Amino acid sequence: MKIVEKDLHISSKNRNQLIDITSQVGSAVRESGITEGDCIVYCPHTTAAITVNVNADPSVPHDILLILEQLIPHRHSGYRHSEGNSDAHCKSTLVGSSEQVPIKDKSLVLGTWQGIFFCEFDGPRNRKVKVQIRGE
Amino acid sequence: MKIVEKDLHISSKNRNQLIDITSQVGSAVRESGITEGDCIVYCPHTTAAITVNVNADPSVPHDILLILEQLIPHRHSGYRHSEGNSDAHCKSTLVGSSEQVPIKDKSLVLGTWQGIFFCEFDGPRNRKVKVQIRGE
Amino acid sequence: MKIVEKDLHISSKNRNQLIDITSQVGSAVRESGITEGDCIVYCPHTTAAITVNVNADPSVPHDILLILEQLIPHRHSGYRHSEGNSDAHCKSTLVGSSEQVPIKDKSLVLGTWQGIFFCEFDGPRNRKVKVQIRGE
Repeated sequence: MKIVEKDLHISSKNRNQLIDITSQVGSAVRESGITEGDCIVYCPHTTAAITVNVNADPSVPHDILLILEQLIPHRHSGYRHSEGNSDAHCKSTLVGSSEQVPIKDKSLVLGTWQGIFFCEFDGPRNRKVKVQIRGE
Repeated sequence: MKIVEKDLHISSKNRNQLIDITSQVGSAVRESGITEGDCIVYCPHTTAAITVNVNADPSVPHDILLILEQLIPHRHSGYRHSEGNSDAHCKSTLVGSSEQVPIKDKSLVLGTWQGIFFCEFDGPRNRKVKVQIRGE
Repeated sequence: MKIVEKDLHISSKNRNQLIDITSQVGSAVRESGITEGDCIVYCPHTTAAITVNVNADPSVPHDILLILEQLIPHRHSGYRHSEGNSDAHCKSTLVGSSEQVPIKDKSLVLGTWQGIFFCEFDGPRNRKVKVQIRGE
């Protein structure tokens, strides 16, 4: 089994933002030389997350962020965390800090409408995403 | 390391439905000949998801769908996506597009009450689930 | 590829509790002798989950549990499941039953503030977490 790692560097511009990283992850897969296996897309930040969803229509990321903001308010009298970003930590746990996508024929096995997103919940910030590709 | 892939074919009957796919995934594991490793159950659709939960009592899937519908309304004046299924995309991101289960002794290492579900959020439709089994 | 498995044993004290298991998972990784690969942290229970979030400040786990309890009430007239823990099953599906963390230089590739938590949603109970470490 071959294991290849790559860090992606991302700059978010808004407090809440879904950033399409499909092409960067796909390039890392092609460059790895791995034909069959899988790819972990891992977010090392606790106020951000990774998700897979539609990347051809910006209205979908908009609606996902809308619902997340309604469910998890920025301000809440019950929050104890003093940094003012408890909502971002909660969103991170609900969306999840990683996604795993199979690889076949040197490509990500994504559905027709699927893209991979870095989810910023406490931007703007400079962020890192860890991509680990494993296989043969 | 051996890698075996299988596509499962699923037909949902309702708009929102949890469909138990544990036995199909378990069969794919047995047929793979892999004794020890892991299994990715991957949903290539952006209005559906994969989860692990109780499969012995249909009241649990009912209650999960009830809560998801309350949290994420089908209709919302703020949605921008024009296809009328923004709720399904949001549910997909919150539940997650894949699950990963360890394999030991040619079987899925599931807890006593655990089953694997395909989560339909925009049915009825014909769907596919990608199963990738890796190990030795 | 080498595959090493370890069960962690956890005792929760409250109905809802986030328990930091980072050091136990890290020890399992070191003991495995695996230098590069990944680690699945898998919860075999349907009323609990695994998440990655801040472990240096107990206010963050507090705020995550607060939001989860507000979103998913313990009692609800629509619940059909008769055991009184439908909320715990729903939380399990939203947070997710596993996390996967890359391994490099015999260590978990966690971000500076990240820890791994067992999420109890129907305690107090004695629980198990399955750790599978794969790599070379």
